[in-house]
Amino acid sequence: MGREPLFGTAYYPEYMLCDRTETDLKMMKAAGMNVVRIAESTWSTLEPEEGVFDFSFVDRVLDVAGQEDMSVIIGTPTYAVPPWLVKKEPGVMVETREGQASYGKRQLVNLLNPVFRRHAETVIRRLVEHTAGRPCVVGFQIDNETKHYGNAGKEMQEAFVEYLKEKFQTPQNLNRAFGLAFWSNAVSRWEDFPDMKGCINGGLAAEFSRFQRKMAADYLAWQAALVREYKREDQFITHNLDFEWKKFGADIAQDGYSYGVQPDIRHYEAARHLTVAGTDIYHPGQDELTGAETAFCGDEIRCLKNQPYLVLECQAQAFKYWTPYPGQLTLQAYGHLASGAAGMLYWNWHSIHSGYETYWKGLLSHDMKPGPAYEEACRVGAEWKRYGEQISGLKKENAVALLVDNHSLTALEWFPIDKDLSYNDVVRWMYDSLYELNIECDVVDAGALDTGKYRMIVTPALYSAPESLLEKLEQFVREGGVLVSSFKSFVADEHLRVYPDTQPHRLHDCFGMSYSQFTEPGKTTLKGQKVSYFAELLEPEGAESLAEYEHRYWGAYSGAVRNACGKGYAFYLGCFTTKEILKELYLQAAGYAGLEVPEARWPVIIRSGVNRPGKKVHFLLHYSEKDDTFVCPWEKVRELRSGEVYEKGEPVCLADWDVKILEEE
Amino acid sequence: MGREPLFGTAYYPEYMLCDRTETDLKMMKAAGMNVVRIAESTWSTLEPEEGVFDFSFVDRVLDVAGQEDMSVIIGTPTYAVPPWLVKKEPGVMVETREGQASYGKRQLVNLLNPVFRRHAETVIRRLVEHTAGRPCVVGFQIDNETKHYGNAGKEMQEAFVEYLKEKFQTPQNLNRAFGLAFWSNAVSRWEDFPDMKGCINGGLAAEFSRFQRKMAADYLAWQAALVREYKREDQFITHNLDFEWKKFGADIAQDGYSYGVQPDIRHYEAARHLTVAGTDIYHPGQDELTGAETAFCGDEIRCLKNQPYLVLECQAQAFKYWTPYPGQLTLQAYGHLASGAAGMLYWNWHSIHSGYETYWKGLLSHDMKPGPAYEEACRVGAEWKRYGEQISGLKKENAVALLVDNHSLTALEWFPIDKDLSYNDVVRWMYDSLYELNIECDVVDAGALDTGKYRMIVTPALYSAPESLLEKLEQFVREGGVLVSSFKSFVADEHLRVYPDTQPHRLHDCFGMSYSQFTEPGKTTLKGQKVSYFAELLEPEGAESLAEYEHRYWGAYSGAVRNACGKGYAFYLGCFTTKEILKELYLQAAGYAGLEVPEARWPVIIRSGVNRPGKKVHFLLHYSEKDDTFVCPWEKVRELRSGEVYEKGEPVCLADWDVKILEEE
Amino acid sequence: MGREPLFGTAYYPEYMLCDRTETDLKMMKAAGMNVVRIAESTWSTLEPEEGVFDFSFVDRVLDVAGQEDMSVIIGTPTYAVPPWLVKKEPGVMVETREGQASYGKRQLVNLLNPVFRRHAETVIRRLVEHTAGRPCVVGFQIDNETKHYGNAGKEMQEAFVEYLKEKFQTPQNLNRAFGLAFWSNAVSRWEDFPDMKGCINGGLAAEFSRFQRKMAADYLAWQAALVREYKREDQFITHNLDFEWKKFGADIAQDGYSYGVQPDIRHYEAARHLTVAGTDIYHPGQDELTGAETAFCGDEIRCLKNQPYLVLECQAQAFKYWTPYPGQLTLQAYGHLASGAAGMLYWNWHSIHSGYETYWKGLLSHDMKPGPAYEEACRVGAEWKRYGEQISGLKKENAVALLVDNHSLTALEWFPIDKDLSYNDVVRWMYDSLYELNIECDVVDAGALDTGKYRMIVTPALYSAPESLLEKLEQFVREGGVLVSSFKSFVADEHLRVYPDTQPHRLHDCFGMSYSQFTEPGKTTLKGQKVSYFAELLEPEGAESLAEYEHRYWGAYSGAVRNACGKGYAFYLGCFTTKEILKELYLQAAGYAGLEVPEARWPVIIRSGVNRPGKKVHFLLHYSEKDDTFVCPWEKVRELRSGEVYEKGEPVCLADWDVKILEEE
Repeated sequence: MGREPLFGTAYYPEYMLCDRTETDLKMMKAAGMNVVRIAESTWSTLEPEEGVFDFSFVDRVLDVAGQEDMSVIIGTPTYAVPPWLVKKEPGVMVETREGQASYGKRQLVNLLNPVFRRHAETVIRRLVEHTAGRPCVVGFQIDNETKHYGNAGKEMQEAFVEYLKEKFQTPQNLNRAFGLAFWSNAVSRWEDFPDMKGCINGGLAAEFSRFQRKMAADYLAWQAALVREYKREDQFITHNLDFEWKKFGADIAQDGYSYGVQPDIRHYEAARHLTVAGTDIYHPGQDELTGAETAFCGDEIRCLKNQPYLVLECQAQAFKYWTPYPGQLTLQAYGHLASGAAGMLYWNWHSIHSGYETYWKGLLSHDMKPGPAYEEACRVGAEWKRYGEQISGLKKENAVALLVDNHSLTALEWFPIDKDLSYNDVVRWMYDSLYELNIECDVVDAGALDTGKYRMIVTPALYSAPESLLEKLEQFVREGGVLVSSFKSFVADEHLRVYPDTQPHRLHDCFGMSYSQFTEPGKTTLKGQKVSYFAELLEPEGAESLAEYEHRYWGAYSGAVRNACGKGYAFYLGCFTTKEILKELYLQAAGYAGLEVPEARWPVIIRSGVNRPGKKVHFLLHYSEKDDTFVCPWEKVRELRSGEVYEKGEPVCLADWDVKILEEE
Repeated sequence: MGREPLFGTAYYPEYMLCDRTETDLKMMKAAGMNVVRIAESTWSTLEPEEGVFDFSFVDRVLDVAGQEDMSVIIGTPTYAVPPWLVKKEPGVMVETREGQASYGKRQLVNLLNPVFRRHAETVIRRLVEHTAGRPCVVGFQIDNETKHYGNAGKEMQEAFVEYLKEKFQTPQNLNRAFGLAFWSNAVSRWEDFPDMKGCINGGLAAEFSRFQRKMAADYLAWQAALVREYKREDQFITHNLDFEWKKFGADIAQDGYSYGVQPDIRHYEAARHLTVAGTDIYHPGQDELTGAETAFCGDEIRCLKNQPYLVLECQAQAFKYWTPYPGQLTLQAYGHLASGAAGMLYWNWHSIHSGYETYWKGLLSHDMKPGPAYEEACRVGAEWKRYGEQISGLKKENAVALLVDNHSLTALEWFPIDKDLSYNDVVRWMYDSLYELNIECDVVDAGALDTGKYRMIVTPALYSAPESLLEKLEQFVREGGVLVSSFKSFVADEHLRVYPDTQPHRLHDCFGMSYSQFTEPGKTTLKGQKVSYFAELLEPEGAESLAEYEHRYWGAYSGAVRNACGKGYAFYLGCFTTKEILKELYLQAAGYAGLEVPEARWPVIIRSGVNRPGKKVHFLLHYSEKDDTFVCPWEKVRELRSGEVYEKGEPVCLADWDVKILEEE
Repeated sequence: MGREPLFGTAYYPEYMLCDRTETDLKMMKAAGMNVVRIAESTWSTLEPEEGVFDFSFVDRVLDVAGQEDMSVIIGTPTYAVPPWLVKKEPGVMVETREGQASYGKRQLVNLLNPVFRRHAETVIRRLVEHTAGRPCVVGFQIDNETKHYGNAGKEMQEAFVEYLKEKFQTPQNLNRAFGLAFWSNAVSRWEDFPDMKGCINGGLAAEFSRFQRKMAADYLAWQAALVREYKREDQFITHNLDFEWKKFGADIAQDGYSYGVQPDIRHYEAARHLTVAGTDIYHPGQDELTGAETAFCGDEIRCLKNQPYLVLECQAQAFKYWTPYPGQLTLQAYGHLASGAAGMLYWNWHSIHSGYETYWKGLLSHDMKPGPAYEEACRVGAEWKRYGEQISGLKKENAVALLVDNHSLTALEWFPIDKDLSYNDVVRWMYDSLYELNIECDVVDAGALDTGKYRMIVTPALYSAPESLLEKLEQFVREGGVLVSSFKSFVADEHLRVYPDTQPHRLHDCFGMSYSQFTEPGKTTLKGQKVSYFAELLEPEGAESLAEYEHRYWGAYSGAVRNACGKGYAFYLGCFTTKEILKELYLQAAGYAGLEVPEARWPVIIRSGVNRPGKKVHFLLHYSEKDDTFVCPWEKVRELRSGEVYEKGEPVCLADWDVKILEEE
């Protein structure tokens, strides 16, 4: 990628009745856009009949893009299959716990079906071969928001048994690892291995989920290998990794947003096959625009490769809930760059007139005319033309890591903390509290942790932790690091077997505390504030209790402890509290870790990085409709949008939903 | 039908262990009843084994009815199939998106199954042949509350593809019409057309629903043709069209009521095959008895043929929620006549002692003795004997039409305004507001609109509107009519493709307004009152804004406009508001339309018509337990129940749940 | 069983990775335990491959138990089938209305499958043969919490038709009994009898449920017969009958508690095949520990055989909701004895480290170390060693019977009183009100009532009552008994056909009252207190009205009546009221029945019985965290735990969650 941020949009001329390609690309260009992403949902247009190919829509975009000097990202069209393929091979539709999917929706594909793979390979080869030579093509997106789709079909289950055989050698080892003797589930011959669709052993079921995720990542690896046979050296391979989607409306409604760790593919595993990490980020809007999703998702994606990443999809107008207030599209755009993105593409150009996503509105409304959203995008585009190079693809060196783990996520679906408190709820509670304190962090896959990079490590509900990770964390603390862990961390091994000794396993000395009981909190409070969902009854053994529960019987126990261990410190919060209490603990921990925490708090958000010329850039992102003032803590900075210069102690005025970009001089 | 209103009940001697026919018909007679409806659910009694017929129950009723001088309506028994038929041909059970229905419940029949048709034909022919000659038989009801039952079986899908072939000629035309390129759903050969059960293209799915409705209507046409081969000239063919059923309890509970437009058969289409329109109307009771359902459903059914109609089913005691207060059964009975009904039959005579509808209580409780409900029916019967001819089958010439449309209903299931606001919610909001203002209206199928008859037309969420209708409405306004439209009107074409130009499509000039944005209202108010669910951000272009939104950012937009266009006026309300605001707008619109709106408001309801001798009759229906007084606005009227005469300005006292019938002298 | 209460735990060495048998049994022994229950879920361990048996885990426990002088209960392992059996015969998995179960969960077995039966027989024979000779084996538990599991598979349906043939002889009789003519469900040939999975005739469906329950009981009879072939004379056969399970959390969560009458097996029918009744009782904990479940379930189980019973499972720590407060485990243990139990076993010994019930915590936490729960159990064990013989297996002669009926339970699922008021809600409302008044009662299967034993009979919603029972109750009252019935009693016959005459059927003279209407109460009150869910509009005919409804229209009717009939009295409460009103009525009824009601009320609970030496023992169970004082009403009692002696009128101080055991001198 170049130095200028990619700014553009997804575009589907296939979905229109008339050819507007030239009009549309000229309008994009006028908005300061420099890239368009095409083709990733259009297999039935590219190959209307088996073996009959038609690249006219693609060619038309490439021609006009070439003319207008715009870049193009080509998406392989495999995530939505054409009707003829399903008619030919019904096994293309995925089989899940709920039965076999019906044809209609995208993605419900059995990625392991050989007929699907054969035809997918053909269309990928033809499309990439056809386009790789075009100068305007800057890269390829393989597939789209790929996941395992709950695949529990024949191929998946057969492959799983092979994987188990290799991993465990004998059924007896398998039985022991997962405790299959329970309820007579023990297997004595591999041939008897039962259909996983009925499995109720959480450990084995989670192992299956892990395997399903692996199959999804392997599928991306396979696509990447195909693309690599054709692509130029300078063309990237990316993919739009997405996040757990939180719905908030009716089933049919197009709603929801990017909430937390993705359950159905492991980002870290998938990203290894990409040359550039990419993502789709959708977030609440209007009064609910907090910036937390932009930050969380960006921090997670950036850390996959520790390089600039692409936001391949983000909302323009989308749902009725999100029709942006003036200024919010601008705030969103800078928010992505503030997390280290190298570019951002809207989904999508114009509102589609038919079909499932009619009301997932694009930058243009259905009338196809410039409206408020387009006009605000034009202003963003104009600004990025001016100083985009200075703020794109920022480097970050965060001292704090927050560990996330797909396996713990699945584990807590089988062994829920509470029906209303998911793994991702805990992750977001811990992440958002850091975010609101303006403590920037990396969001790191627990399996890819490099402790050497950090001074403080945070573990939200890291339920499943192998001995090796525990050892690493213990070492980290002993050598001077600060560990902040929540309840339900370090409970079980990698097969979700609860460690049969003192909890928290292995680290109880490190925390100077153990517990053998936990409870629904009921009326319990901590520091006068309500405890919700879950409380471990901590017994300090060397640690300092930061607070005891307030409760007739649980008052004998601690709710949070701090322990000095070696050169470092370990904090443990045994219950789900208000963010206020968690933030207090963070500030203490940050003090021990030697971090400088800004005085500003959300809704004023500060996110910083170093740009290519090596200058420090600070984004002030103001997530509020109320005016505010920020006192400049830096010696001398120049605000890029206005050109104004601020010195230390000077007030920076923030209007509603405002953005300031301060470059240190 | 005669001049006297039909007054009677459904009757099922088949469901009893002893023969009470004579007792029951004598009790009916004593209650002033003159008609009984039989046989429509009793196939397994009429034909206990294939080809073995037993008409003894029917004959017994006909004999006693003849003796007692009562009329009989014969129902064809096809809506509940006998076990032997399903054993013989499992394909008789309907296959839906949820799979194939199990035998047990009524109606879950595959109306297109040829074996079903063959056996249905036989039993219909035999029953009608057997009974048509009996003098007491006044008419036939074909089938019962017929709908398509979600039929997505083989026959339905094959017929649908044939229908598409004929309509679109090529798959390419089909793809274009519905935008099937989206998510690779485009079809290139008819053979590849996928199973509709998985379809997620709202346009195509709605076309399928439209086709399913047509198949249901065709089935009624087929039954009508069979009956016509046997029936006498003076015998009618009717059918009990029912309405969207709104549940309010548990699944198994017998509850719910007639709420709005029927999704699963188009009344207008079905009614063409009948000689007399018929309907089933159930409504909330006790404190929730408002009269709105009686009025709405009646206004809809009356307009199907613009002739008197039959209420073939209405509640006697029904559910525990509805046990009538004293006076309420009388109020209900007059309410039906006030809408133009020519008669009314209870469902049903006595409470059934076994089976699914045990607690859908009849006029007699399970003890089979006269109780409060029976006694009140006796009073109604006695009154109708006295002056029923003067108030039955009234003619109405309403100046206002409210347009309803099954296709828009389906459309808004696929593209919901809000998960908690359905099409019928909008219809009822707009209808009920007219009703509560005592502005009587016709409820007209949008495809059958004769603009020449009206001075004001109301369109609730008329989402799908073909160009021809838009042209007609535009013309209507230009020529002096008043159009009142809600949000989400005129958005999409008949294939649910959003019109790709300025909204509201074609009529934006007529309304002097356009919009390209809409939003969840959040804290938005209009005239100080809460806006809920949905708000279009209207930009007046010539129209007068009736109110701007109250909101920091949306304050720049209007929520309601009025525009002079040609000789007429067009009103547009862009959001879901309180009824109060809608009523204000209605009163303004009514003024422009030159309507006289009575001063009385709900709970005092006035419904008027012209009786056979040509006199104007006004019903005062009092839906409240509080006493009230109504000031007579007519020169001189005679109250039929009491014989009292009122002159203009005189007070008419209304007791709780009272009815007065005022005939102009 | 001996004189000493059994005190112990379920134990599964199969679920552990290392052999702790000796450690564990020694710890149990140290806690005063004398029994361990094993093997009932471990078929896949006992028979890992077809025909290959491995009793090593069992032998090991038996060896150590022998050594430690502990007793062992052997469970047959059939309620959870091994994978190889399902692979061999997929028909082993039960088929229900929801389709065929997948392998994984326990219990989802087709008990009628012949292959299952053959293999079950083999493993039962081998296990019982192997263990019956061991001196430490005191008895056998057959299967585990057996129910019919919704079995609607081929074998069940075929057997059902045979049963119907025998019962009704002709299809016509069947049709008449259940009113199958309704909706054309009448059957004319047995061959046409439809699949019961779609049945919507409540009467027939309930008959099927009754038959399913019978099949489950027959299955236990079959197991008992097998065991009897091997067991010693002194060994008992028991089974852990469980109760309707009320969930309160997410599906996956391990939560819920023993709430009411079991829908899926008839305890009375099952218990005939046991030598000792057994049960599993789980109840809410912490602030929600009321003792009501312990009392209700105990009173029901005790009456099955009118002998001491075993609590084969009760909670130790179980769910996070129940982590016991100090004292609560003790209170629970004595509560079981206070109901007449002869012993109590925890489920289970230690918390399991893998699988579905990982968080159904045992007496030891996952760390396998003594913790607060274990320590409290030790105290209980020590106390029971001292005076357990004096308080175990108490005899009770209660003057009050509360009738329960599985068939009425099913009936009210098909004909619900209200979606939020189940049969068991009414049962618990009526039982708990007695309980809170300290009126002890027997909970008696309606089909096994011996009226001669009682002075007062209570019928909660005894919807289905055959003439014979009605006759018996009438006689009971005439001869001086007191009958207290709720609404929805005596409505329908044994086929759920509503009696077609005056309600309450047959007993209206006895109650001096009838009704033909009922209603949702709406704003109705009775004695100023809210009426909920349902109200019958009672018309006294000789009875004294205890209260009229407060409502504009229903004020004409009574809500509760009392009638003198013969030498006795009959009370009828026509609506669901507050417990306060019900208790008032109970106190009146108790007065008429000549019962002495203690002055103490819940949370102070008194439960009494006669011990083996013939002394009266009174348990004071204090279900509150607030201190309280109880005034001794007995001449002279000795408190067993403290040794203190109280005389009449002396205060007995009750600490939080306290227990006193007062033996009359």
